[in-house]
Amino acid sequence: MSGTNLVHIRVYFKPGIHDPESETINRALARLGFNEIASLSAGKFFDVRIESDNAEQASATARKMCETLLANPVIETYSVEIVD
Amino acid sequence: MSGTNLVHIRVYFKPGIHDPESETINRALARLGFNEIASLSAGKFFDVRIESDNAEQASATARKMCETLLANPVIETYSVEIVD
Repeated sequence: MSGTNLVHIRVYFKPGIHDPESETINRALARLGFNEIASLSAGKFFDVRIESDNAEQASATARKMCETLLANPVIETYSVEIVD
Repeated sequence: MSGTNLVHIRVYFKPGIHDPESETINRALARLGFNEIASLSAGKFFDVRIESDNAEQASATARKMCETLLANPVIETYSVEIVD
């Protein structure tokens, strides 16, 4: 029987890739008095509901979406988590 | 004793707010043949390590960060999750 799966995708910079957005936010937080921030990294998330026969198929579809459209494979990487 | 907490923050549009990025991605996915996408919503995430006495304090700091800098309260909302 076919149903849907909710998949949480996170797309973020590969380690070592210069991330000006996170650096700007870090500086702004320090200026605003948030001195307790040890580290901050930013990225994009996509909550996707996918019609699929099972979680494995939904996960495969999500990975293909990342490789085709959502992530830039030169500088970004991604994670896929089946939520339900 | 003081330590650090890892906090996952998600910032996303309030319900009913027009989200052109998600709409564009939805259209592009359909054009690329991903016909099994029932819904997609996008947003930003921030993984923040916060120096704090306990999880409650870290959560309060994260919420203050969202209200001060990370989210636009007119059109966006946010969630805060203590990961460790």
